[in-house]
Amino acid sequence: MSYAQQLLDTYPGNLNADAALLAATIDALSDCAQACAADTDADLSEQNLTEMVKCIRLCLDCTDICTATGGVISRMAEYDPSVARPLLEACVAICKSCGDECERHAHYEHCRVCEQACRRCERACRELLDALE
Amino acid sequence: MSYAQQLLDTYPGNLNADAALLAATIDALSDCAQACAADTDADLSEQNLTEMVKCIRLCLDCTDICTATGGVISRMAEYDPSVARPLLEACVAICKSCGDECERHAHYEHCRVCEQACRRCERACRELLDALE
Amino acid sequence: MSYAQQLLDTYPGNLNADAALLAATIDALSDCAQACAADTDADLSEQNLTEMVKCIRLCLDCTDICTATGGVISRMAEYDPSVARPLLEACVAICKSCGDECERHAHYEHCRVCEQACRRCERACRELLDALE
Amino acid sequence: MSYAQQLLDTYPGNLNADAALLAATIDALSDCAQACAADTDADLSEQNLTEMVKCIRLCLDCTDICTATGGVISRMAEYDPSVARPLLEACVAICKSCGDECERHAHYEHCRVCEQACRRCERACRELLDALE
Repeated sequence: MSYAQQLLDTYPGNLNADAALLAATIDALSDCAQACAADTDADLSEQNLTEMVKCIRLCLDCTDICTATGGVISRMAEYDPSVARPLLEACVAICKSCGDECERHAHYEHCRVCEQACRRCERACRELLDALE
Repeated sequence: MSYAQQLLDTYPGNLNADAALLAATIDALSDCAQACAADTDADLSEQNLTEMVKCIRLCLDCTDICTATGGVISRMAEYDPSVARPLLEACVAICKSCGDECERHAHYEHCRVCEQACRRCERACRELLDALE
Repeated sequence: MSYAQQLLDTYPGNLNADAALLAATIDALSDCAQACAADTDADLSEQNLTEMVKCIRLCLDCTDICTATGGVISRMAEYDPSVARPLLEACVAICKSCGDECERHAHYEHCRVCEQACRRCERACRELLDALE
Repeated sequence: MSYAQQLLDTYPGNLNADAALLAATIDALSDCAQACAADTDADLSEQNLTEMVKCIRLCLDCTDICTATGGVISRMAEYDPSVARPLLEACVAICKSCGDECERHAHYEHCRVCEQACRRCERACRELLDALE
């Protein structure tokens, strides 16, 4: 069981969503931020750098947005849909773009792994968005 | 002239918005992230902590979202409206909430200063959103 | 197997340390950053806020330092001991302080969980420091 | 006057260093994090990408470490030299490396600007380290 799940199970305040769903999203965001940071660096080690530039930029965006989203949805006691919803939508969009770009480079194992992290995170953010409606 | 302005003036790629407007937004985001981080800590030093909890949470959200937005709009070469627009909207919303909450504590000089940073950042993000339409 | 491990197993450049050790440290840093962010918020929901202030500040420091360290050690191709060593030392120190403070509040389940994340991260960073010597 | 200076002038707790020196360091860290993020993206737009890879990696490290250091020294009420000193030392080291690498590319205006931000941040962190002794 992840720390996020354990922490939400013992949260002293009110949550605006199912604890297991929130925890799964927090874990997916954290894993995706990390995978994209690592993939950025792996991309920079490839020979055909020019073809990797778009992937690098999308991975950097994805790390930044997943990190911020993970922070915000860890503070659900002040949950505000006017903030959380567009943030999750931005996260869905960048995970989709970054996952698509990584898929184009899936002959590189590191991009294949990063694609999986992006797809899982995109799904988790969509599910949380639906649950928050 | 800020580093952001100098860097955008010499940017080797294409920008999707006026360089001066982008630079002003990047500066406002960076200043707001910093002001909210400092205000979080100042809030934690006040006597009436219970009344400051909402302000602390909003400042933490605002720091996270402004930091991510600043990163993303610094990488305009891969500008994607499906990512940048909701992210800027989330940023406008949290700067508004955090500015409003700081205004409620404006008898504390640190909240008054933080409110100014949030208001300026909210305006800058709105202007960039309009310009990107 | 974590994304970090999968990504390092397929890293196209040179690593300056054992891939399994690096991956374990990256995972521990990411988990600790997340646990501390969640514990900050749980602390803010407790009644005896004044007693939690130190814990909140240390958790915020721990999140910031673990996030930066995770980023830096994910870019091992430019490994520079004059940067990585003091950064890992700062990380060991804050994980120790934050873990000790959380232990003092271990009657709160969220602090008990956060303590575990800090202790594991402290150990992982120490092991990596030893391996890099 | 920067927000950092205004916020420290009204800080309700105790500071472990001169407010003007702290504020100057916080500003330099924030500006350097931002300049390095922008320089990363400008580097990615250059033709001779292979020569820019080291610069990109160092800029990414510099952004991460400056961001974390800025957060930690904004929370001086829990100042702990065993954390702050190695963190500032890591920051001095990465600003030095990144500034040196940017100097090698100073024919690119964006690297010349980024070098200035790194040099100023390195100096500010050194001065704070001396003052904290």
